[in-house]
Amino acid sequence: MSVELLVHQDPIAPVILGVTGILFFALLGRYTARKLGQPSVLGELIMGVVLGSMGYYLGFDFIYILREGAAIFDMVSLNLSGMDLHQAAVTVFDPVGAEKILLILHGPNGPALTQVAHTVDVFSRYGVIFLLFLVGLQTSVSEMREIGLESGRVAIVGVVVPFVLGFVMARLLMPELSLNVDLFIAASLGATSIGISARVLEDLGMMNSREAHVILGAAVFDDVLGLIMLAVVSGIIVSGGLEVVNVLAILGWSALFLTAAFWLGPLFLNYTIRLVHRLDLAEAKLFISFLFVMALAWLANFVGLATIIGAFAAGVILHDGYFVHWGDVQRHKVSIRDLIAPLETILVPIFFVLMGIQVKLESFFDLHVLGMGSGLILAAIVGKVVSGLAASRASNRLAIGFGMMPRGEVGLIFASIGKTLGVIGDTLFAAVVLMVIVTTLLAPPLLKAVLGQKTPNDMDD
Amino acid sequence: MSVELLVHQDPIAPVILGVTGILFFALLGRYTARKLGQPSVLGELIMGVVLGSMGYYLGFDFIYILREGAAIFDMVSLNLSGMDLHQAAVTVFDPVGAEKILLILHGPNGPALTQVAHTVDVFSRYGVIFLLFLVGLQTSVSEMREIGLESGRVAIVGVVVPFVLGFVMARLLMPELSLNVDLFIAASLGATSIGISARVLEDLGMMNSREAHVILGAAVFDDVLGLIMLAVVSGIIVSGGLEVVNVLAILGWSALFLTAAFWLGPLFLNYTIRLVHRLDLAEAKLFISFLFVMALAWLANFVGLATIIGAFAAGVILHDGYFVHWGDVQRHKVSIRDLIAPLETILVPIFFVLMGIQVKLESFFDLHVLGMGSGLILAAIVGKVVSGLAASRASNRLAIGFGMMPRGEVGLIFASIGKTLGVIGDTLFAAVVLMVIVTTLLAPPLLKAVLGQKTPNDMDD
Repeated sequence: MSVELLVHQDPIAPVILGVTGILFFALLGRYTARKLGQPSVLGELIMGVVLGSMGYYLGFDFIYILREGAAIFDMVSLNLSGMDLHQAAVTVFDPVGAEKILLILHGPNGPALTQVAHTVDVFSRYGVIFLLFLVGLQTSVSEMREIGLESGRVAIVGVVVPFVLGFVMARLLMPELSLNVDLFIAASLGATSIGISARVLEDLGMMNSREAHVILGAAVFDDVLGLIMLAVVSGIIVSGGLEVVNVLAILGWSALFLTAAFWLGPLFLNYTIRLVHRLDLAEAKLFISFLFVMALAWLANFVGLATIIGAFAAGVILHDGYFVHWGDVQRHKVSIRDLIAPLETILVPIFFVLMGIQVKLESFFDLHVLGMGSGLILAAIVGKVVSGLAASRASNRLAIGFGMMPRGEVGLIFASIGKTLGVIGDTLFAAVVLMVIVTTLLAPPLLKAVLGQKTPNDMDD
Repeated sequence: MSVELLVHQDPIAPVILGVTGILFFALLGRYTARKLGQPSVLGELIMGVVLGSMGYYLGFDFIYILREGAAIFDMVSLNLSGMDLHQAAVTVFDPVGAEKILLILHGPNGPALTQVAHTVDVFSRYGVIFLLFLVGLQTSVSEMREIGLESGRVAIVGVVVPFVLGFVMARLLMPELSLNVDLFIAASLGATSIGISARVLEDLGMMNSREAHVILGAAVFDDVLGLIMLAVVSGIIVSGGLEVVNVLAILGWSALFLTAAFWLGPLFLNYTIRLVHRLDLAEAKLFISFLFVMALAWLANFVGLATIIGAFAAGVILHDGYFVHWGDVQRHKVSIRDLIAPLETILVPIFFVLMGIQVKLESFFDLHVLGMGSGLILAAIVGKVVSGLAASRASNRLAIGFGMMPRGEVGLIFASIGKTLGVIGDTLFAAVVLMVIVTTLLAPPLLKAVLGQKTPNDMDD
């Protein structure tokens, strides 16, 4: 009976097993991290690294396929376009990898594993889009205008210095790489993750301190600066190279896209929301938000930017205030955040674990690579600590520098886009993920050490 | 530049376009249906049929691939297992279809379209799982015990009579089909969709009438009866045929699964919920619900039942009362329903449109098929109207019969499972979907006509 059951089984069953399994391990990592007083994202990421390495050494086919990431789908695409499967495998992988992949595919579960891996990949990409949308939702244009000069200075220094340090470090340690790669690596050092520092400050009861305001303001500004940098750098790579014409074209496209989004977006929203005023509020908010994020993500990609830039812009533009047809916005039963958060909450941990799984630790068994990774981590730490110097003397500058340090999800998203663009290979990807882990791991204890002794009231002098 | 953009573009971009496009058309159908005073599901389904037929005649590759459904993925699986692509195509499709599919795959967007279609397929299957979970969530065991004798009689007659009529009709009109197919078709006639009649009764302001109580009670009971029937019939098919040993084995597995779920499920829930009491309430509810549904759906499939039976059981077992660690359940800010509903709301319309797209209307250009379809629809209508006779004389029996008529989503899910099991071919699938459309379309006006003249107070005599 069991053989026949397997033949006839619902094709969604292996997908459920794979996706739910990944989510389960993500939560295990998250829960363990919290027990140890660490940020959730760190737990999920490290759980992914552990799963990936253990699964690889123990020879689990599913982990092997997940580790190779989008390369498998490139191979399937070549194959479906008419190329012989063996040749497609050799085109995408090195000979040893190709043989291993073909062996897995020809096994009893090979095709099902590919389908499951595809679903995990798609889910994690949707997760990042929802994540950036929610980050955007927290950021309003009027708020951005109110961010003080001090935060602005810290943010700019905190993006420029790590970028320059990272670029120099990459040139010195990896002269064999192209300028494009150096640019991308350097850009990924500039990001700041607002969530992690915010949680530490909250734990210390210092959310209202001067330092907290500077850090959080700078981190918001940093998101925007980082995304602009991503747009420029990835634009340069996609369009061929660091030439004045290319850079200008990318800046032009970005400006055009953002202008169009911020100008036409509200018109479109007002029009469609009036059109669907017969739907109930939750339905209308959910559908409009979903369609709007996806439309801007797709359009961003269409003009050569990253999908997440569109998702972020959608979040900044959209707010509950558009839904006035359903009565006083303050008294709405559900907010846009309430409706999109469940999607994000399920999908984002899958992204973090997948990123961890794709870290090929074995590529670090090499002194050159190890030196390179250490150099990047050093540049990442020094660059952000220096940004604290841009704060006024009245602030605890060291605390601000430490608070800007954790890269968290944003640095990771940079790395994953670099991988998708084919700029960042296995080794560099592993180095960037380790940089994210180390900076995220170091920031909370350092921040606590510097701020912990003082009481919140001492901070205002 | 645009060529390079296409090469380097984010692989999620075409997926976003395809999935969001499908959802957009679903909402267009839903909105149009509501404007015409029709149920949402009908609008989505008919929109799918229109999209599918128009796309097919206009030669849209994406629609063509979606229409073929899981067959494409079977072909890719055969291919990845080592079979030559051309041979895999010929194995799965007829020669004309195989040639067309290969032509699309070898086109510039072929592989991307396959990936998009795979995502649409996976999303729609997840949608059905969440749908059945939410139906289960509305159904509590204690409530089921309270359902009156009258509702019970109506439900049983309303499942048995359409089943018998459907079986006889299938034997008479389609003697060429196997017993398995007849059984499946007959079973799919037994379903009732509670949502559609509930909305009509609400519109008429008669939710508190005697008839409404009987109909809604019977419909809940019907869900459970229908799922048991599905378990038995699909079990018989999977295990080989209508033999006493098979039927007993299936009944045994079903009983074992349900007993285990209702006995071990609560123990498991209490244990894990205590374990995660450090998470915040929304996170805990979302993760526990998600993992629990998926675990039961997978286990159901593992013992040979449909995944949706597991999802439904999960809904019946789970309730907010388990989350007592976070304080008074009545005052929780979010319910399980609040958290899962956004997932369901986005994914279910994709399922309905996809089902509509997969209706191959051209298979009806044949008198034999047309007669067969009409016969099924007749059996479906008569069978349910007769169920009203099982109500007491005090009730408006015709109204109850009409209220039991709409098949909605449940009948559709039956058909899609039959398709997955390989029992229901293109023609029968189209016939079942048409049966769903016709019964769903007819019920509201008939119900209004019978009940509309009386005032609600007249109903109690």
